[in-house]
Amino acid sequence: MIRIAVDAMGGDNAPGCMIDGAADALKKSEEIELWLVGQRDVCERLLAEKGISDSRLHLVQASEVIATAESPTDAIRKKKDSSMVVGLKMLHSGEADCFVSCGNTGALLVGGQVLAGRLKGVRRSPLATLMPTVAGKSLLLDCGANVDARPTDLVQFARMGSIYMEHVVGVKNPTVGIVNIGAEEEKGNALVRETFPLLKACRDIRFVGSVEARDVPQGGVDVILCEAFVGNVVLKMYEGTAKALLTVMKDSILSSTRGKIGGFLIRPALRGMKHKFSGEEYGGAPMLGLKGLVVKAHGNSTGKEVSTAILQCISFAKADIAGKIEAALAEPAGEETPSV
Amino acid sequence: MIRIAVDAMGGDNAPGCMIDGAADALKKSEEIELWLVGQRDVCERLLAEKGISDSRLHLVQASEVIATAESPTDAIRKKKDSSMVVGLKMLHSGEADCFVSCGNTGALLVGGQVLAGRLKGVRRSPLATLMPTVAGKSLLLDCGANVDARPTDLVQFARMGSIYMEHVVGVKNPTVGIVNIGAEEEKGNALVRETFPLLKACRDIRFVGSVEARDVPQGGVDVILCEAFVGNVVLKMYEGTAKALLTVMKDSILSSTRGKIGGFLIRPALRGMKHKFSGEEYGGAPMLGLKGLVVKAHGNSTGKEVSTAILQCISFAKADIAGKIEAALAEPAGEETPSV
Repeated sequence: MIRIAVDAMGGDNAPGCMIDGAADALKKSEEIELWLVGQRDVCERLLAEKGISDSRLHLVQASEVIATAESPTDAIRKKKDSSMVVGLKMLHSGEADCFVSCGNTGALLVGGQVLAGRLKGVRRSPLATLMPTVAGKSLLLDCGANVDARPTDLVQFARMGSIYMEHVVGVKNPTVGIVNIGAEEEKGNALVRETFPLLKACRDIRFVGSVEARDVPQGGVDVILCEAFVGNVVLKMYEGTAKALLTVMKDSILSSTRGKIGGFLIRPALRGMKHKFSGEEYGGAPMLGLKGLVVKAHGNSTGKEVSTAILQCISFAKADIAGKIEAALAEPAGEETPSV
Repeated sequence: MIRIAVDAMGGDNAPGCMIDGAADALKKSEEIELWLVGQRDVCERLLAEKGISDSRLHLVQASEVIATAESPTDAIRKKKDSSMVVGLKMLHSGEADCFVSCGNTGALLVGGQVLAGRLKGVRRSPLATLMPTVAGKSLLLDCGANVDARPTDLVQFARMGSIYMEHVVGVKNPTVGIVNIGAEEEKGNALVRETFPLLKACRDIRFVGSVEARDVPQGGVDVILCEAFVGNVVLKMYEGTAKALLTVMKDSILSSTRGKIGGFLIRPALRGMKHKFSGEEYGGAPMLGLKGLVVKAHGNSTGKEVSTAILQCISFAKADIAGKIEAALAEPAGEETPSV
């Protein structure tokens, strides 16, 4: 049984969507056991209203709630009885293997590192997001956890991302590229230029060089490596541009009768596309390198998305990603080993 | 008369598109005089073939060409008789007010700073791009010239961008936002956190705080400030995402007969949209803070785009942007002046 703690209170649609997601996931998999962490009375009432009851669904009381706008460090430090803090502590104590939350991202990132604890050898824990691309999907990391990371941190991120991509997503011998402002090795800022030779020398990843931001949506590289500030910009520009383009397109199409009829006819095709680019299919973003798995799902996740995020934990736990990361990082990166 | 030097040899479609663009611009404005810088025999033959002759169009011989893939610093240093180096020197000597090129971006950025020379008080010269947005347009800077800039550099960029936006684009009292990974002041990397209070204290700009990358395509903020690596990522993600989305959408629409008919019907509407997001209308990207104006147009610009880039120089020269920037930067930023 894979034991998953679920933050019942975090996110825009909590606790409703968390409860729906939990119920859906339990229906879809017999390998999981869930702990809904949050205000017990609220959860009990909702479960009763929705007619949900399952012997693999448990409640854990946590009286406080961390809001989206709260300062991450303060929230984690002061709200000791919040659903997020209680849930993360279950990872640390080993009561749970995984923790899924739609709550305050900053707090989850801080709490993940501080409360769940990092694996031996891991200096910083990156947030990784599986992005849909034209060619398939890419794992983008770090997309928000560690601004101003060092070159050696990025090398660890590349190694952890490769393990995740290979053993959870199932991409054999995944390629790794670093986000850069040109294709050549000498291009880039100080961080990228310093990281580049370390990645080239690292023997347990398949480094393919620079990736220009322009080519990220096209896909083709499995692990897209970048510093957290840049990763956040990549992810948010992806989201924002798609949204802006669809808005403008819709306005443009609806401005004439001809366009309106055309728009009606292409609707099924666009639905297919929306599905392709939908976050629902991919679930949440994992934090890598922690004791146990922390999954951050979108703040405005639906029940369906929460369910996907919960189910995603199964392959992570089964593949023993934490164990594999710890084993890999116990070995020095390729460059420190004498070559034969 | 505004004297504009045009790099006849740089870019994918040079010299043809440069000559077409020059001819078109001369037809549209009587206020400009142009110098085509490049291989005289090649230019003469093309002008004759196209039947172009104008008393305001001159040729300047430059025997070498800087290719797109060349190392910027080497190219500028070694190819002293290249069209780019000769053109930039015309700015420095005062023979030209502006220089327009579709050539090697890196070389133009290096050459601009080294050969054209910076205005008094300007420490670094940012590349600024006018981005189309849902709400209108925003000036994004620095989008590629100075990686690893300092906080005080960013403050100068904000001041120069505001002057450009007000006097060339015509936005009264433009707003300035800094690209950040959250809306709150304490968010961000070290550079953004250090720059934030300097911008707040700067009295000659209208600083409105952080802008998340997600909101950049939506528009609404006139000057979008960022470090060059981040700016390049913003710009390239914008371009790449739009391209990827349109590809997927087209494939999706063309996969059914119903979709094909719908696609035919919405075509005029999409053309309108393409026009809105087209670079053609906006011309090239200016480098700010130099003696004279250097405009970088897309490597694959058409004659129409080159013409727009040339015509854009008129308002820059007429508004005396260089003079205004020099005057503004002679004053310390607001924070150093005692408040009343």
